[in-house]
Amino acid sequence: MADLHIKSLLRAGPGIDLSKIDTSATPGFEGDKDAGAELLAAGADEVAGLQEQLFAASRFGDTRSVLLVLQAMDTAGKGGIVRHVVGSVDPQGVSIAAFKRPTPEEEAHDFLWRIRKRLPAPGLIGVFDRSHYEAVLIHRVRGLSTLEEVEGRYPVILDFEKELVAAGTNVIKVMLHISRDEQKARLAERLERPDKHWKYSPGDVDERAYWDAYMDAYRVAIERTSTDDAPWYVVPADRKWYARLAVHTLLLDALRSFDLEWPKAEFDVEVEKKRLAAT
Amino acid sequence: MADLHIKSLLRAGPGIDLSKIDTSATPGFEGDKDAGAELLAAGADEVAGLQEQLFAASRFGDTRSVLLVLQAMDTAGKGGIVRHVVGSVDPQGVSIAAFKRPTPEEEAHDFLWRIRKRLPAPGLIGVFDRSHYEAVLIHRVRGLSTLEEVEGRYPVILDFEKELVAAGTNVIKVMLHISRDEQKARLAERLERPDKHWKYSPGDVDERAYWDAYMDAYRVAIERTSTDDAPWYVVPADRKWYARLAVHTLLLDALRSFDLEWPKAEFDVEVEKKRLAAT
Repeated sequence: MADLHIKSLLRAGPGIDLSKIDTSATPGFEGDKDAGAELLAAGADEVAGLQEQLFAASRFGDTRSVLLVLQAMDTAGKGGIVRHVVGSVDPQGVSIAAFKRPTPEEEAHDFLWRIRKRLPAPGLIGVFDRSHYEAVLIHRVRGLSTLEEVEGRYPVILDFEKELVAAGTNVIKVMLHISRDEQKARLAERLERPDKHWKYSPGDVDERAYWDAYMDAYRVAIERTSTDDAPWYVVPADRKWYARLAVHTLLLDALRSFDLEWPKAEFDVEVEKKRLAAT
Repeated sequence: MADLHIKSLLRAGPGIDLSKIDTSATPGFEGDKDAGAELLAAGADEVAGLQEQLFAASRFGDTRSVLLVLQAMDTAGKGGIVRHVVGSVDPQGVSIAAFKRPTPEEEAHDFLWRIRKRLPAPGLIGVFDRSHYEAVLIHRVRGLSTLEEVEGRYPVILDFEKELVAAGTNVIKVMLHISRDEQKARLAERLERPDKHWKYSPGDVDERAYWDAYMDAYRVAIERTSTDDAPWYVVPADRKWYARLAVHTLLLDALRSFDLEWPKAEFDVEVEKKRLAAT
């Protein structure tokens, strides 16, 4: 199990300077890749077990859930986080929503409309692969909305997340932070490998021209929406194994904080044993 | 990789006599539990890899998907199938739908309404934990619909599944078949273990009185809806490890039958390399 110290080291908020964060660092962890992978594997059963307890509790009225929000520049490894961090959990206990370009129907609604429909049910670990933050990230950078519209969304997001937390959802917001050079190397690898071509789109190169504007949009989003209730964590992600370990640690911490117990039987166990024996 | 002979041995259809099937048998597999688990583990990567290829193809217009329909008496191990057979696949590649007692809104609609909403998107492996067959199983046994209504549903199901197959979905229908005694032992275990109490409900014992009626409803469903396009497989499930291996084998066979290849790049790889290098 990774040192939960990671949590405080990665916490981000006002005053964040993304350009000063070493994206290849491994804050709070001294070990190497193998040690990191081992630690992740060692904690996988605990995450799965706690999720089962959370699910069991939900069957008896407990409304709690976890929502892991993943935001990142392309190639930063969101998919790998889902596979390696959440992959050990019972698939029935996970609810994954990938938010791509909105459909015309989605665009006709408020930006939270499609988000609300995909919130995790009680007992589940929800994962948002991109999220409502797209409405203040790509929309800000590429002018998909007016600046005035974008500005109006931060307070709406704050209210929305406050509501989620009040309803029992532990909200973990993660920015996977890679360097511009690391992205270049990863895109180059996709071009080298025919089995990765399907993941590549020429638009990925165009987007690189907006790197600094994206970093600024992330800064603004983090400064304005990192609250005690729903904090942002900036996870250095040039080393995939570290990013996975860090997000695993955040998730494990959230589940532990629930202080879960198995629900008590609402029936008389001895009576039921006799009834069953008679069948 | 398990012998695909399993497939023909488990295929069920007209003339099926569920009472004559040994629920503790391991058709098509000579090995023991450890050997079975090893074989399953050995094939897990192939299932995951083929699903990724299926997903990649879907990004370029391929509409194919897999739908695994799981039906069974309580405690037969549907959840374990999901965890152990589908658990190795990228969680983003799996779409799981558990069909419990319909909501009032669902009941106000045609019985396929809620089913259609949860069909797997192209590229995904869909798993139905219970399914549209509830409308001809519990509805027949417990009289939740009139017999006339139930009788009218078999041809509707045939048309529905024909439509799915025509749209590119490989439909695998599995009945996990346990004995009445095995269910008793599993329910008794749930009563023994406080960490399993949440899975037990006194109604589980009541349902046991209808065992023979359920077996008859399964027989009718299998006789009338096992087609070459969407066949039923009856999987002996007293040995959990065998049931998992068998369903894994059916799934692997379905994925292999797609003859998948990585999509070809729709861009000029060399041009893109230069464009990327210039950023």
